[in-house]
Amino acid sequence: MSDTLRIGVAGLGTVGTGTLELLNKHYEMIAHRCGRPVLVTAVSARDRRKERGLELSGVRWFEDATAMAADPEIDVLIELIGGSDGIAKATVETALEHGKHVITANKALIAHHGNELALKAEKAGVVLACEAAVCGGIPVIKTIREGLAANAIQSIYGILNGTSNFILSTMRESGREFGEVLLEAQKLGYAEADPSFDVDGVDAAHKLAILTALAYNCEIDFESVHVEGIREISTIDVNFAEELGYRIKLLGIARLSDGGVEQRVHPCMVRKNKPIANVEGVYNAVVAEGDFVGDILCEGQGAGAGPTASSVVGDLIDIARGIRMPTFSVPASALERRPTRPMSENYGGYYLRLMALDRPGVIADITAALRDDGISVESMVQRGRGPGGEAVPVVLTTHETHEANMMRALERLSALDSVLEPPRLIRIETL
Amino acid sequence: MSDTLRIGVAGLGTVGTGTLELLNKHYEMIAHRCGRPVLVTAVSARDRRKERGLELSGVRWFEDATAMAADPEIDVLIELIGGSDGIAKATVETALEHGKHVITANKALIAHHGNELALKAEKAGVVLACEAAVCGGIPVIKTIREGLAANAIQSIYGILNGTSNFILSTMRESGREFGEVLLEAQKLGYAEADPSFDVDGVDAAHKLAILTALAYNCEIDFESVHVEGIREISTIDVNFAEELGYRIKLLGIARLSDGGVEQRVHPCMVRKNKPIANVEGVYNAVVAEGDFVGDILCEGQGAGAGPTASSVVGDLIDIARGIRMPTFSVPASALERRPTRPMSENYGGYYLRLMALDRPGVIADITAALRDDGISVESMVQRGRGPGGEAVPVVLTTHETHEANMMRALERLSALDSVLEPPRLIRIETL
Repeated sequence: MSDTLRIGVAGLGTVGTGTLELLNKHYEMIAHRCGRPVLVTAVSARDRRKERGLELSGVRWFEDATAMAADPEIDVLIELIGGSDGIAKATVETALEHGKHVITANKALIAHHGNELALKAEKAGVVLACEAAVCGGIPVIKTIREGLAANAIQSIYGILNGTSNFILSTMRESGREFGEVLLEAQKLGYAEADPSFDVDGVDAAHKLAILTALAYNCEIDFESVHVEGIREISTIDVNFAEELGYRIKLLGIARLSDGGVEQRVHPCMVRKNKPIANVEGVYNAVVAEGDFVGDILCEGQGAGAGPTASSVVGDLIDIARGIRMPTFSVPASALERRPTRPMSENYGGYYLRLMALDRPGVIADITAALRDDGISVESMVQRGRGPGGEAVPVVLTTHETHEANMMRALERLSALDSVLEPPRLIRIETL
Repeated sequence: MSDTLRIGVAGLGTVGTGTLELLNKHYEMIAHRCGRPVLVTAVSARDRRKERGLELSGVRWFEDATAMAADPEIDVLIELIGGSDGIAKATVETALEHGKHVITANKALIAHHGNELALKAEKAGVVLACEAAVCGGIPVIKTIREGLAANAIQSIYGILNGTSNFILSTMRESGREFGEVLLEAQKLGYAEADPSFDVDGVDAAHKLAILTALAYNCEIDFESVHVEGIREISTIDVNFAEELGYRIKLLGIARLSDGGVEQRVHPCMVRKNKPIANVEGVYNAVVAEGDFVGDILCEGQGAGAGPTASSVVGDLIDIARGIRMPTFSVPASALERRPTRPMSENYGGYYLRLMALDRPGVIADITAALRDDGISVESMVQRGRGPGGEAVPVVLTTHETHEANMMRALERLSALDSVLEPPRLIRIETL
């Protein structure tokens, strides 16, 4: 390796372009901070003729990203292609096999193949870094892996998807329903044409799986994440939440307890006065609870060209400075395989909304269904009247109980003649 | 150096005891995360007989911390004695001169002597680390030095002193005056018997000077920090702030602009809906604004045995893992000396409270005094009546102006016969 660190960038979309702009604008500053020049010497993208506003003279162009990844004149490969398999995976694997450090912003790739890729990096004696894959510009991986490394992490949770948070914030502020706000998010460029990765919780689950591996020094286990999205959230629930002193947030939560590792992504009711409840719009935030440090909250922009480029180049500066950290805090070969704590063992309070007929005996039936599984009602609101036989919302919050009990009770509630729609359930998180 | 990293801890007060507890409790976890054991082999404190609840068998005891710092069987010296000079400084210097890495939580020492100590460390080829010196458990030094290293930092600001923040929060919540709340803070152990370092802004200024050096890769210049504390804040101002949509916070603010580096610690009016306005009690928070990443906020406990030990041992884990970072992000010999932007050039809005006689012409005199320096009034409130000649509060907020103009206007206002007490001024920060 020459004194100059030579970079190949695969993928010139929004983040790739932003990364090149950053490296160009701050060339002198980065050289000063690293004690050596960091130079993009090669790029690869599908369409060479596309106008990107980049000055690329002197930079070698590869049609084939894997050929660039194998090129002997590249020291670090930055993968910004995206997707859990295909060309992104092939490019990363090729780079690692050829002894190049790899930086990626690709959460799907790491969530699905992080263990094997980290092992490959380790065998080759190179770094596989992915700060940009979790919460864009927030240096949360570094914070957990290094800043809080003296702590046993008791829990880690956060708003890991800006699109969903924007939709929930806007639903609350504007009183509009999910579908309408999603359209607005798409117009603003906050949501993709196919929004399912964001609004169904998959993107947040990718990030949570990575955070869990870091916090608990265990293998990535994306398949075990319990995932629910926000499509079913209605403004009725948003308003009831407000009335009860809560905000609805899509959280990713990981915790280590006797039964193993718990990893879940789903809408939560969070007390309005909690810092995490006040993270609004496209912002992301992560709270890590350590046994010595207490709660540390980090908040910032979780997506976009600038913030993501900041994290990509942050990893690059680490490499240029000679910092060599394993992907998941300890060597990949030393990562433990931890059992998953099943969702049925989840213990907490619940918000339930039933659309029920307004007739005598309905409340008695509902409360009996809960009582039969030992679930204790904390509060109940019935709003509006339905003398013509239309359904009215009946909202209950429960004291803490096991999810298994609640699921049995839900089945009984669904089966009641007087309950007309599938019951809506949102977990209450005390955090 | 043996494979085991051998630690000497100087100072066994609250933080020293917490650090030993952490290293003892997490011995296995830390060895796993570092790939090598980290062992306390020596300690030094004034009184050997004091009961600290620590198991110290097998640990060598030094009466003299500098002797421990020179001991050939120590690899890392942790300085937790405190004070900007005297034994703390001598111990750190001795350790550096003997080629040992040094970790300190001593913000006064670094603020006053950071440049020379960082140079000494560099000459010896060792690390001088001080994460615990700024905001206790929040890994803010690592965040700026590494996580956000790809950014030009446009500004950095925060609540850097938990004691002052507790007092301001409690004044607002309880309606009690500064003196009374200070007594409560002392009873709760949040304030020292001599509270001046905390409430006069000195502690926050120490931390700000360190953050400035990191963010702008310049020499520490503590003497240039403009410092004002919170002793003069009255509940009258706290209540007017609330009414005007602000919270009063003691902030440390650093910014780089054409005129040089601006470093200031003083009470600020901050819009209630800003995240920093909602950081309450003994919590600390720092916001770094980078040109690519945007705003990143980190919040957590800024003091106490557990959080401070978390940062001390975080630095230690970095060293054990082989990470070798210069104290202020770039080598000490490469730190720039930047001019100070004088406070008179500060440009912003101001909150002014005058205690004035309630008689004809007073408001005309006051507004004329402001007009004569080109200061434009944004809002004015006169509250209560004083027919018997007692003073009533007249509160004004101004549009943005230069501090030099405001200081001249203040002199004229103070000289008015109808103004009975020294005017109170609080800067409005838009942030």
